Amino acid sequence: LPVSAALFDRFLSTPEMVDAFGAPALVGHMLAFEAALARAQADEGMMTTADASTIASACRIEPIDIEALVADGIVAGTLAVPLVRRLTAAVACVDPHAAGQVHRGATSQDVIDTAMVLATRGALAVIDADLARLVDALLATARRHIDTPMLARTLLQPALVTSVGFKLAGWIGPLVRSRQRLRTAAAAALKLQLGGAVGTLASMDGHGPAVAQRMATALGLPVTTPFSCWQTQRDEWVALGCEVGVLCGSLGKIAKDIALCAQAEIGEMAEPVATAAGASRGGSSAMPHKRNPVAAMTAIAASMRAPQRVAALLATMTQEHERGLGNWQAELAEWPGLFLSAHGSVRALADAAPGLAIDAARMRANIDALQGLVFAEAAAAVLAQHVGKAGAHALLEACSQQVIAGRRHLREVVGERVAADAALSKSIAPAALEAAFDADAVAARAGSLAAGRLDGLLPVHMALG
Amino acid sequence: LPVSAALFDRFLSTPEMVDAFGAPALVGHMLAFEAALARAQADEGMMTTADASTIASACRIEPIDIEALVADGIVAGTLAVPLVRRLTAAVACVDPHAAGQVHRGATSQDVIDTAMVLATRGALAVIDADLARLVDALLATARRHIDTPMLARTLLQPALVTSVGFKLAGWIGPLVRSRQRLRTAAAAALKLQLGGAVGTLASMDGHGPAVAQRMATALGLPVTTPFSCWQTQRDEWVALGCEVGVLCGSLGKIAKDIALCAQAEIGEMAEPVATAAGASRGGSSAMPHKRNPVAAMTAIAASMRAPQRVAALLATMTQEHERGLGNWQAELAEWPGLFLSAHGSVRALADAAPGLAIDAARMRANIDALQGLVFAEAAAAVLAQHVGKAGAHALLEACSQQVIAGRRHLREVVGERVAADAALSKSIAPAALEAAFDADAVAARAGSLAAGRLDGLLPVHMALG
Amino acid sequence: LPVSAALFDRFLSTPEMVDAFGAPALVGHMLAFEAALARAQADEGMMTTADASTIASACRIEPIDIEALVADGIVAGTLAVPLVRRLTAAVACVDPHAAGQVHRGATSQDVIDTAMVLATRGALAVIDADLARLVDALLATARRHIDTPMLARTLLQPALVTSVGFKLAGWIGPLVRSRQRLRTAAAAALKLQLGGAVGTLASMDGHGPAVAQRMATALGLPVTTPFSCWQTQRDEWVALGCEVGVLCGSLGKIAKDIALCAQAEIGEMAEPVATAAGASRGGSSAMPHKRNPVAAMTAIAASMRAPQRVAALLATMTQEHERGLGNWQAELAEWPGLFLSAHGSVRALADAAPGLAIDAARMRANIDALQGLVFAEAAAAVLAQHVGKAGAHALLEACSQQVIAGRRHLREVVGERVAADAALSKSIAPAALEAAFDADAVAARAGSLAAGRLDGLLPVHMALG
Amino acid sequence: LPVSAALFDRFLSTPEMVDAFGAPALVGHMLAFEAALARAQADEGMMTTADASTIASACRIEPIDIEALVADGIVAGTLAVPLVRRLTAAVACVDPHAAGQVHRGATSQDVIDTAMVLATRGALAVIDADLARLVDALLATARRHIDTPMLARTLLQPALVTSVGFKLAGWIGPLVRSRQRLRTAAAAALKLQLGGAVGTLASMDGHGPAVAQRMATALGLPVTTPFSCWQTQRDEWVALGCEVGVLCGSLGKIAKDIALCAQAEIGEMAEPVATAAGASRGGSSAMPHKRNPVAAMTAIAASMRAPQRVAALLATMTQEHERGLGNWQAELAEWPGLFLSAHGSVRALADAAPGLAIDAARMRANIDALQGLVFAEAAAAVLAQHVGKAGAHALLEACSQQVIAGRRHLREVVGERVAADAALSKSIAPAALEAAFDADAVAARAGSLAAGRLDGLLPVHMALG
Repeated sequence: LPVSAALFDRFLSTPEMVDAFGAPALVGHMLAFEAALARAQADEGMMTTADASTIASACRIEPIDIEALVADGIVAGTLAVPLVRRLTAAVACVDPHAAGQVHRGATSQDVIDTAMVLATRGALAVIDADLARLVDALLATARRHIDTPMLARTLLQPALVTSVGFKLAGWIGPLVRSRQRLRTAAAAALKLQLGGAVGTLASMDGHGPAVAQRMATALGLPVTTPFSCWQTQRDEWVALGCEVGVLCGSLGKIAKDIALCAQAEIGEMAEPVATAAGASRGGSSAMPHKRNPVAAMTAIAASMRAPQRVAALLATMTQEHERGLGNWQAELAEWPGLFLSAHGSVRALADAAPGLAIDAARMRANIDALQGLVFAEAAAAVLAQHVGKAGAHALLEACSQQVIAGRRHLREVVGERVAADAALSKSIAPAALEAAFDADAVAARAGSLAAGRLDGLLPVHMALG
Repeated sequence: LPVSAALFDRFLSTPEMVDAFGAPALVGHMLAFEAALARAQADEGMMTTADASTIASACRIEPIDIEALVADGIVAGTLAVPLVRRLTAAVACVDPHAAGQVHRGATSQDVIDTAMVLATRGALAVIDADLARLVDALLATARRHIDTPMLARTLLQPALVTSVGFKLAGWIGPLVRSRQRLRTAAAAALKLQLGGAVGTLASMDGHGPAVAQRMATALGLPVTTPFSCWQTQRDEWVALGCEVGVLCGSLGKIAKDIALCAQAEIGEMAEPVATAAGASRGGSSAMPHKRNPVAAMTAIAASMRAPQRVAALLATMTQEHERGLGNWQAELAEWPGLFLSAHGSVRALADAAPGLAIDAARMRANIDALQGLVFAEAAAAVLAQHVGKAGAHALLEACSQQVIAGRRHLREVVGERVAADAALSKSIAPAALEAAFDADAVAARAGSLAAGRLDGLLPVHMALG
Repeated sequence: LPVSAALFDRFLSTPEMVDAFGAPALVGHMLAFEAALARAQADEGMMTTADASTIASACRIEPIDIEALVADGIVAGTLAVPLVRRLTAAVACVDPHAAGQVHRGATSQDVIDTAMVLATRGALAVIDADLARLVDALLATARRHIDTPMLARTLLQPALVTSVGFKLAGWIGPLVRSRQRLRTAAAAALKLQLGGAVGTLASMDGHGPAVAQRMATALGLPVTTPFSCWQTQRDEWVALGCEVGVLCGSLGKIAKDIALCAQAEIGEMAEPVATAAGASRGGSSAMPHKRNPVAAMTAIAASMRAPQRVAALLATMTQEHERGLGNWQAELAEWPGLFLSAHGSVRALADAAPGLAIDAARMRANIDALQGLVFAEAAAAVLAQHVGKAGAHALLEACSQQVIAGRRHLREVVGERVAADAALSKSIAPAALEAAFDADAVAARAGSLAAGRLDGLLPVHMALG
Repeated sequence: LPVSAALFDRFLSTPEMVDAFGAPALVGHMLAFEAALARAQADEGMMTTADASTIASACRIEPIDIEALVADGIVAGTLAVPLVRRLTAAVACVDPHAAGQVHRGATSQDVIDTAMVLATRGALAVIDADLARLVDALLATARRHIDTPMLARTLLQPALVTSVGFKLAGWIGPLVRSRQRLRTAAAAALKLQLGGAVGTLASMDGHGPAVAQRMATALGLPVTTPFSCWQTQRDEWVALGCEVGVLCGSLGKIAKDIALCAQAEIGEMAEPVATAAGASRGGSSAMPHKRNPVAAMTAIAASMRAPQRVAALLATMTQEHERGLGNWQAELAEWPGLFLSAHGSVRALADAAPGLAIDAARMRANIDALQGLVFAEAAAAVLAQHVGKAGAHALLEACSQQVIAGRRHLREVVGERVAADAALSKSIAPAALEAAFDADAVAARAGSLAAGRLDGLLPVHMALG
């Protein structure tokens, strides 16, 4: 069977997703639409059950030469026309009368949009499964390191101390919410398309809505009442695409954090060096120290591509009248790439997350290397109770200069200052000052907040299966 | 007061939206944050009520020189730092001690994100009000012309006959759904930002979550439990932006349809030539026949700009660690433009919709000009019952060629063929054939479906206020 | 051989372009790189000629299982590593020593970027050939209809009269300039990539620049002095991508104009209904009057997709240090799609242009249908010489109202006014007034300007081959 | 005067650029167009010199109430109509006859596009000046540190050793090329717009091309022969925008590298902590160790926004017929933002570059911290001459494992292995092995390549002024 994705798209995706939107899958879904249409019309008395069976039996992917189909589709201006032609011919071999019933009252867009819906439903299921797996792994790590101190960093500079659990809670929240919002968006968007030539189901002899209901049921899609097609009303469809884009952004943020923490000079996190199957990942034979964060790489790539895909989908929404010229077709072509990227990203991180190494010692060392300066704000708060905010600030500034100039720890420098000042040393207990420099305590407070968040997220995550 | 939008941005937007995200409004919201913070901290016993009152009293926009603020902000790398500095100085003039309590435990991002939330809340209210007005006007027109026949067009070519009501139901549905989805997205996204330097509320002495609850209540924002800040978790925020982008797409589709129908050669719709205030719109003195669809122009412009804004928001989601470097700032700068565009679009269409002219006679004339060919499918269906689908198709194809070659109507040509064939003329009643060419009947069937859709949409729309 | 493009990408592209960036082609180019590298190193004395020959002989695509290659590449984090592993193994079967020389001193990015350059070179040649064909066809039509009057339209409303030649000169100019700018951009961008692990050619024993020169020559790429690799300097590469994006925009404009002119109610242009091979294009059996502008559809789709691809390329430019994490890989994946779209667009229009039908009678009828109003400005200019601009304008406004109210021609109404006014009728010769309404004369003046433009463009076009 | 940019746009831009595209500047350029038009028409005998002088004298920005102008422009559908109305009224106060000559034969788009061209010309000059300053500063640093060893990093992992000069040469090249390409693109794009209502200069009595030549000369724009307007041929204009986008990408890459090198744990580079005027930059009073890379922040923000702006420009290229509906207006609105971002980026880096701190000692320490592993490839190359590539590779792999497990340097471990092997120790001179680990030598080789590149870039840079 032909593989339907470009080389570097595949490199950044997964076989499942390549298959989900592959030509065979899409053509298969198109044929499933035709079969369901015939059966529904038979049930509504628009054709005989025999004709419907004949048609449904002919809805097989095997005889379709996809190369020729594409070539004919380019000439026809739609892939559905040559497919229906082939199907009709196949039916005609068995029963010429039944051939006259093929694709009755439907239009190209009905077939193709529904096929995309079916492919997307499958794609989302695969994405959600890996997303759940990723959340599980991150939850486990977050719980394990709920209070482990690590540097928080803002504008790529160390700021204060936080905890690994707090950081990971920040990763997990958007993922759980994405699972939820994707469900909601999918429930609205994954609908049968059936409108006939201009959306009015004009050639269904009034049976249109009933046929649509039967088809939706047969294909496992929601029955919408009142009947509604969405040939040039793409808002729910594109809103689903937006959610996939948002997911890629949230995953990209995690990936970037991992990659930054995995820098040799920081060394706080590392992707696993082997796949579950034991194959070596991200290594370089020529550079033995290299441990390339290839899962992060894939997720970052997705986060750079998805925004543009979403933009393309939004740009195609202005579809003229009852079927767009070029914009519908552009939307069809842009849609799968978004899912290829998204699943590549989710899969890469879900595979890496269980083996994500957290180097607590290195985290501690990186905190220590800042000589207590990351606790300056906390120390100032202690002093401020006695010398006022301005005074405390001035004192800390002086101490910090001393720390930066020398190689000493801020705790010592401040301690000396306090000790040297009678008033201060009387009012400030050494333990209070010491506490301001206690990374564990700071991390534990962050961890406590994180635990609360995780407790809030868990039931949502569990409820999503 | 300075106007805070570029010339052509303003041209495509509204004064309300320019103001909503204007520098004075944003700085005002930032000061409102500081006031609410001080009061909440006083209520939690972190400062005296007197200090909080002093701070809150100093939170006034008037003394702020916005030019100087921006210049200082560029140097500082954030606008919040020089604002807090000014506020602190203002408080210090009244009470030096209170000055030490300003902005306590908060970070620049807390102030700025919350200010953006408050501005966005106001912006969404204005957008929704105009959107409701637009839906009302379109509903009225759709009801008035529920069965009026007009050409449906696919790929910019006439296809079959539909009804004005059906077409407009297709415009209205996405707008009502956008109202709904925007509410849902806003409920999730419009949250207080309060995390302190790295999100852990480290300098709030354990009162952080309680302060956040009080502030949220004071600012009319939802109280989130467990406490949650979103400094680098932008999924709900960007998802809201996506919904605004989707709205622009749905509006752009309407605008494009109007503009296409307003082409002189089609002439089926026209924007009103005067504003509500009576000013002439879209006219050209040099070209008296010109009646430029300027509302459509504005909405189309928005539909071309919004996708890229959404892409920019998505691209900035990968914010590093606990505060992004460049991406957060890029997001702040991209956000308002999306709303400027969106409201320009909604407002333009809401103003034009009540006066949107529907030329039913011209619609009929355009149908007639196609000499019955748009009914070929329906006629074939009638014939197919007697000569089979293939036979009917062949017959219609021959008749159509004749129609295209000559200047006659397909109804006549087919009628003659039927009359000339003894078998056919026996089995096909002239009335049945005639009915296939009945634009009114076709439109009425479409209108009936449309009425069902409108009935489904109305309660949703009404419930949204 | 596997087909390497998604279904709807293929539908909007061409077999040539699908092949140009297909997995077999890219892997083939990667092997060509390895062969050229070995030979160049042998020529520089870095290995024996025998080893180089052994390596070059093993650089064959046939034994490569692309499915397995992709799977291994995902694990390795690059497609080059498993390819080099396979090549090394193949060489080792023949000569273990030579196996040690494979890929010496090169890095994954060298192989892959150079493969993309070679694929792009071929792609651009195909695009240019079709672009030249399109320009030829449009030039012929422009010359044939250089003075044919047609309506000029602004904001989708009729404005004044222009000529077909003038309109088409406006289409052709950007295409000729794109041919030129693409050449310039390609000359800068299509360069060998050879830098070794970090761009310094560190493992080439000082022969790096000389090896690069030899390889460039062997692969038909320009020799750059001083030696320069571009591993994370993507400006020239992305600038080439931008030019492809600009081309898609220019083609999209043409396509939109054609599609708008092909609307049944306007009917001034039509795409050919058959391919060169005689196959029917864009027809609909159910709707015999339909003549879908499918070439325009393809080009419009490209114009909606290309901007986002260009944005993706630009977004990936910020590649970290000496090789990006995710952004380089994203760029690789986005690049081919831009060319798939672009060639789909060029090919569709180049195929349609020779048969593009120009309906001069319909153009004239559409002008006439406006009852002379499009000549109001010209008529006012004639009158202004005698009654001043304001007076002329007032008079024309009154006449225009009369015209719009009734069904008469502005020429008559103005003529009557002039005749009824003794002063006017004395000073204004009927012929002068008549001339203002002369569509042929107006078109001829436009045609004369157009001829000048075409004369300016032709030598540039011809010089490009 | 009103400030015409949104708050956060200004924060990421410069006062010069805000002014360059500010409402006063644009309206001023529009008036300059009208003055030049009148004078050119007088010179061609289309009006009296007195009338032209009267008009030109009235072309003053002062009396224009920009708020009211925008409000009227929204109603009219273009800003030019109310501006011309105001100008006409102003002229009429002086001389009613001259008022009849205002804006003669021109169209809104002529005025507005030309105003944008004039604003863009100024903007590009400012950008280029800062770009030249940035290149100068980087050249000086590159020369100063041409051979300073630093780690090269790929996929955010240390790879081999390079030199600061080599890295900076990689930054400088794209900037010099951008200067060059921007000149070329500007020369093509910065052209007078003068076409009249539909591009045919129909109301210029045949003097159109001559008037255009005179106007171009007067406004300092190139005279194009044959006459050419570009009302819906935006290729050269958008191609210029693309170049600005490419520049933002190249600057963003530099900024990202700086920010990554400025991470506390890496500490190899730092932005200056004070502006030229002595103001503190990027500091945080609460976190004394923070030294936020705010110049990088601004440039990174631009690199995330520019791609979407370019996409918007490309998306608007498909302007219908002789003037687009919505797309032209969208282009106008998107254009300035691209330049605001770009100049914010260039300025920030140009200001920071002269004070960019290079910490050579830290660079060396970071190399040393990798225990020689970054030289493994080089060491393997030495060994391979004696034990073959495979043997060398196996040996190095074993040694590397030992290095990673313990805390020793690869040089020692390999040295021991060689010493312990009689055959190896006979054939491999200790000095040869030692040389493989010589960071200075590796850096010097990179520096030598870099010097060649800089020598190639310098004359180009100098020639651009």
